[in-house]
Amino acid sequence: MAKDVHPPRGMRDFLPLEKTKRDAILDVIRDTYRSHGFQEIETPVLEDITRLTSGQGGDNEKLAFRVMKRGAELDSALAASGEAGADQLADLGLRYDLTVPLTRYYATNRAKLPTIFKAIQAGPVFRAERPQKGRYRQFVQCDIDIIGDATALAEVELLTASLSALANIGLSDATIRVNHRALLASNIAALGVPADQAGSAMITIDKLDKVGIDGVAAELAEKFGASVSAAATTWLNSLQGELAVPAELASIFNAVHAMHPGKLRFDPTLVRGMGYYTGPIFEIEHPESGSSIGGGGRYDGMVGRWLGTDAPAVGISIGFERAIDLLPEPAANAGGVLLVLADDSAEVLAHALLLQSKLIAAGDQVRLERRPKKLNLLLENLASQGYSRFAVVDTNTDAASLELRPIA
Amino acid sequence: MAKDVHPPRGMRDFLPLEKTKRDAILDVIRDTYRSHGFQEIETPVLEDITRLTSGQGGDNEKLAFRVMKRGAELDSALAASGEAGADQLADLGLRYDLTVPLTRYYATNRAKLPTIFKAIQAGPVFRAERPQKGRYRQFVQCDIDIIGDATALAEVELLTASLSALANIGLSDATIRVNHRALLASNIAALGVPADQAGSAMITIDKLDKVGIDGVAAELAEKFGASVSAAATTWLNSLQGELAVPAELASIFNAVHAMHPGKLRFDPTLVRGMGYYTGPIFEIEHPESGSSIGGGGRYDGMVGRWLGTDAPAVGISIGFERAIDLLPEPAANAGGVLLVLADDSAEVLAHALLLQSKLIAAGDQVRLERRPKKLNLLLENLASQGYSRFAVVDTNTDAASLELRPIA
Repeated sequence: MAKDVHPPRGMRDFLPLEKTKRDAILDVIRDTYRSHGFQEIETPVLEDITRLTSGQGGDNEKLAFRVMKRGAELDSALAASGEAGADQLADLGLRYDLTVPLTRYYATNRAKLPTIFKAIQAGPVFRAERPQKGRYRQFVQCDIDIIGDATALAEVELLTASLSALANIGLSDATIRVNHRALLASNIAALGVPADQAGSAMITIDKLDKVGIDGVAAELAEKFGASVSAAATTWLNSLQGELAVPAELASIFNAVHAMHPGKLRFDPTLVRGMGYYTGPIFEIEHPESGSSIGGGGRYDGMVGRWLGTDAPAVGISIGFERAIDLLPEPAANAGGVLLVLADDSAEVLAHALLLQSKLIAAGDQVRLERRPKKLNLLLENLASQGYSRFAVVDTNTDAASLELRPIA
Repeated sequence: MAKDVHPPRGMRDFLPLEKTKRDAILDVIRDTYRSHGFQEIETPVLEDITRLTSGQGGDNEKLAFRVMKRGAELDSALAASGEAGADQLADLGLRYDLTVPLTRYYATNRAKLPTIFKAIQAGPVFRAERPQKGRYRQFVQCDIDIIGDATALAEVELLTASLSALANIGLSDATIRVNHRALLASNIAALGVPADQAGSAMITIDKLDKVGIDGVAAELAEKFGASVSAAATTWLNSLQGELAVPAELASIFNAVHAMHPGKLRFDPTLVRGMGYYTGPIFEIEHPESGSSIGGGGRYDGMVGRWLGTDAPAVGISIGFERAIDLLPEPAANAGGVLLVLADDSAEVLAHALLLQSKLIAAGDQVRLERRPKKLNLLLENLASQGYSRFAVVDTNTDAASLELRPIA
């Protein structure tokens, strides 16, 4: 029977050592962002479904888990569902990213926030996708955003802090590809793509990594004809070697490279999927990862949606689940100490509790266990949990001279 | 327009200083439990709705937020909903506690866990209750549980670790009321309540704090007649002053009091709502809180539900939201440093980034800001965010001699 007991499809349990690794890495990222002057906030896991499906979430909107209305509201929605459809049955949804909640949060709380708001968010998001290797229905995102600063200082701070965070978790080989949506748009226009179809051309160019220049050219030919396709081939083939950084991005590159030399790379073909980007866009890469491990960009038009007045904004997200996969298991719990009670007497228990409190005060993690029939089996069992030292404790055991033996 | 933008009903945004306070307190609790040999785990926020409504969650089952099926499954459920009802429209639900997920987790992962599993869980739970002061629809629970130990050592460890955690967050005045379900049952039987109606009598006795002895007696008279009511009045009036600890609880009291003198109090009228408790039960109290700030007990019959074979279990939950309310705001962010760029030049920016990195390496949290027209307004704005020191930085500013001025 227990064999059939699993977490919901596409969702995960974390074992103690996995949980320790995840929390340790996330804490380093959050600490790094805090040290750079970002402030951590939290929003509910749920948002009103109308906000989650208002057009800001792009394709992710279709992946929102919907939460059913309750009580009389559900009854009347069910009674009316013939006309209104299933949409009326839900009033809440699980957030599929941290950006839509952030813009809602900013609109709600702006009066209590700094004029320039530098936010950290880390938490679970939910997408009703078909689960596959490395893709989950609940996963952690870790975002920073700056709202209220239209200058390149915001991009510089985001990129500097993120490169520091990546280095601090052991991913100092990470680099960030950078483009600018206005540059991309003018490059696409120069190919002969009509302005109102630039988005469709972007979708095709976004496939460059997967299908290569020929694949992109073929798809553009289909969409826009031979002339656009030929121009695109010429353009893409011209992008060889180190490219000169355009004026729009020069101040960002100069400032970030002063702190993190060579970590940014200008890539005029970088698209980033979401439609809401309006300026610089970023994608984080790592040589050991086949896909990007994060990204972001400037989205000046989006915050105004809830606020009624526009606010410039730029954000970047570290793909936490992908970063985790690149990092080694942490060293075994070096502080883990096992105290085995020599017998079941009240005296030994009282003495063991006292020893435990002394070792804890000295910084150890101390687990108590009754003495089992087979001590070796217990030691084996706990060695796999990261415990490395033990002692059998009786009332004669002295805290000062306590001898901890290694668990083989 | 922005006035209407709020988080969902009964759910909360956390401002930066609130978030800092919550995380700091939760980290102390988790660290204390880890130091006592407990291991932190994580389960998904969602569980299959059939598990959440299988009878283990008591009254909370009615409060589960239900997540709608998707795609073809939703369509066919809708088509059949005339007969099957709204229940068939949901396949998942948001967890309303951490106990039902823990028992599911244990059944799923038992082979990879220690024989005696000492678990920490901290995370959000969700209940579709009518929101009111101090009661939210998303809130944090922090539980520890020991599965696989039928001896009183498990209770001793839970209570010792929890009293340490409460002391470490500043609630050293907390005490824990303790009773035993078997004692309670025999006391209720002695009143003349039929065995099959003991649960109903417990519900009445559980109201003692609210309605007093007379109120309990009146309700018992209504349910069971004058004789039971009179016996209950005599019994409740006899419970004055310090009561002798019964044999069933003596080893727990002796061991815990050796470490935390006077922190346990035997209360033969303690009920704890959930039906699944089978042994000792606990409720955490604090003199400054009108209601309990946590509780738990032994629930030996529940884990077997998914496992197919019984496993003894005992758990305790610190009511995180109530504990938070008892604790003062943290001191202002003493490490918070503000560096104001003297001008918008690339040189000043590069220099400020370098200074920032040096201060961060020395342990500070350092926020950069362009110089606004009114510096005082900026300083005022950031003082309210916990920033206490600042400097205006130009290319002559020397890291070694950097003079940070207090933000008045």
